[in-house]
Amino acid sequence: MLPFQRVTIIGMGLIGSSLARAVKAQMPGVLLRVSDGSPDVCERVRELGLADEVCDQPATAVIDAEHVVLAVPVGAMAGVLAEIAGDMAPGAVISDVGSVKESVLKAMTAAMPSHVHIVPGHPVAGTERSGPDAGFASLFDGRWCILTPEDVGSAATAQVAAFWERLGAKVEMMEAAHHDRVLAVTSHLPHLIAYSIVGTASDLESVTRSEVIKFSAGGFRDFTRIAASDPVMWRDVFLNNKDAVLEVLGRFTEDLVALQRAIRWEDGDTLEALFTRTRAIRRSIIDEGQDTDAEDFGRPHDGGAA
Amino acid sequence: MLPFQRVTIIGMGLIGSSLARAVKAQMPGVLLRVSDGSPDVCERVRELGLADEVCDQPATAVIDAEHVVLAVPVGAMAGVLAEIAGDMAPGAVISDVGSVKESVLKAMTAAMPSHVHIVPGHPVAGTERSGPDAGFASLFDGRWCILTPEDVGSAATAQVAAFWERLGAKVEMMEAAHHDRVLAVTSHLPHLIAYSIVGTASDLESVTRSEVIKFSAGGFRDFTRIAASDPVMWRDVFLNNKDAVLEVLGRFTEDLVALQRAIRWEDGDTLEALFTRTRAIRRSIIDEGQDTDAEDFGRPHDGGAA
Repeated sequence: MLPFQRVTIIGMGLIGSSLARAVKAQMPGVLLRVSDGSPDVCERVRELGLADEVCDQPATAVIDAEHVVLAVPVGAMAGVLAEIAGDMAPGAVISDVGSVKESVLKAMTAAMPSHVHIVPGHPVAGTERSGPDAGFASLFDGRWCILTPEDVGSAATAQVAAFWERLGAKVEMMEAAHHDRVLAVTSHLPHLIAYSIVGTASDLESVTRSEVIKFSAGGFRDFTRIAASDPVMWRDVFLNNKDAVLEVLGRFTEDLVALQRAIRWEDGDTLEALFTRTRAIRRSIIDEGQDTDAEDFGRPHDGGAA
Repeated sequence: MLPFQRVTIIGMGLIGSSLARAVKAQMPGVLLRVSDGSPDVCERVRELGLADEVCDQPATAVIDAEHVVLAVPVGAMAGVLAEIAGDMAPGAVISDVGSVKESVLKAMTAAMPSHVHIVPGHPVAGTERSGPDAGFASLFDGRWCILTPEDVGSAATAQVAAFWERLGAKVEMMEAAHHDRVLAVTSHLPHLIAYSIVGTASDLESVTRSEVIKFSAGGFRDFTRIAASDPVMWRDVFLNNKDAVLEVLGRFTEDLVALQRAIRWEDGDTLEALFTRTRAIRRSIIDEGQDTDAEDFGRPHDGGAA
């Protein structure tokens, strides 16, 4: 049985368009309506044939929907919620795919009428690409989807969990605030650091930008992938998960300063001890199926030149 | 014509064993002798059949060699140089593959007799794996190899350049001190930061290590690859390129603190401007053939679970 018969997705970027493709691939019986704030994106989604109906207005797309999923940047959620609140069907479930959960839960609770069930969600999946052409149906396959509803035992929560499982995801329940602390470490801080180092490297006087690009295979290029992620989405993540990000960033800076000190004082033992310890984490991530076991991420052995 | 008829490689880790395989693949006429400080590694290299002769002592391996390449951690170079100095043939060329060049150039100049030509080198290539089984013949294909001889116009320099070009590498000449500044940015700082963040993430109280592993697909897993690199090799890099690393680390910390401030004061424009700028660098790296154009590094779409 389908968890939902009528699904609406608002926002047709990488995640929203992947979700549309996944729903069509795994639940072809679903009536799928989508919408996007950009007329160009709506047009492209029509050309790609990603949904049964592409609506120019989000409010039109949610009428009669049993499950509405917001796939817009976290900072745009409140605006969309205000637009659709009056048209949500009684008993409908509102959810999302945002990378921050406490602020989204608050915005949903403030905007939605009491006859709507709120089940915020976050599939931990993505690539560095953006837009409706970047999506693909298997994006959520084998990945975790974290749900952060206030009532974990509700029928609505069970339905949303079943929905993600049909798309191949593994579902985990978490308190919104805890989600935000976990993702601050596993996603937000890594992105901030990657953006920062790529900025630093392109602004030096003693080393040219063309040298940085040329010799990037020494490690730098690994950071540039996530530093190519969507700027608006990530701006909103940092603005909406400020406290947790600042906390873990403070911790990171403290540890980095300790390493700086170890280098200055030529304390090789401290360096070697840390470098040995970090190997084990990579092994665990591979054993858990959360990354490829292929060396160099499975990049082609010639470095990938086209 | 072969650049060298008799080649010796000391150190049979990832780079040394890749070099041995590449020499055998691209220059089968070369007489290849190798050596390693570990008897187990020597034994394994014999089993793998990577060279014409595997010598237990490096001094034995260099007798009659026209080209000797040191592929040991930077901190082990001086010891090996002392062992082989008395047995280097007149007119022989000594080179290496170390990630730091000024300290290696100094050590070579101090240790080698005047009848030996000194051409330090650094192929900017590698994976997170270590040891003789991790090597492969195409590692240097399409990658840059930086040479830092004092005399860039010498016959010995031309021969070493020809040697690397035969293995598929592109050769660049650079002053040793400048090499160390460039690599501090493109390789050493990224490794230091990756080691540091992986350490930070595994030591938090509010987020468990198993949560970090489980939800690492949000970005963190990208950092764990290079944080799985050889601990001793990397310890030696930081001890031997201290000044350049500390300088660029200071610059990075400054930029990161500015970002921290932008988050604290909710300055979304500053964040978005940086995040937009960094996208262009990734594009340039791909256009230059220094990384794969495939999304997510070409990882399998299911995340790579075996």
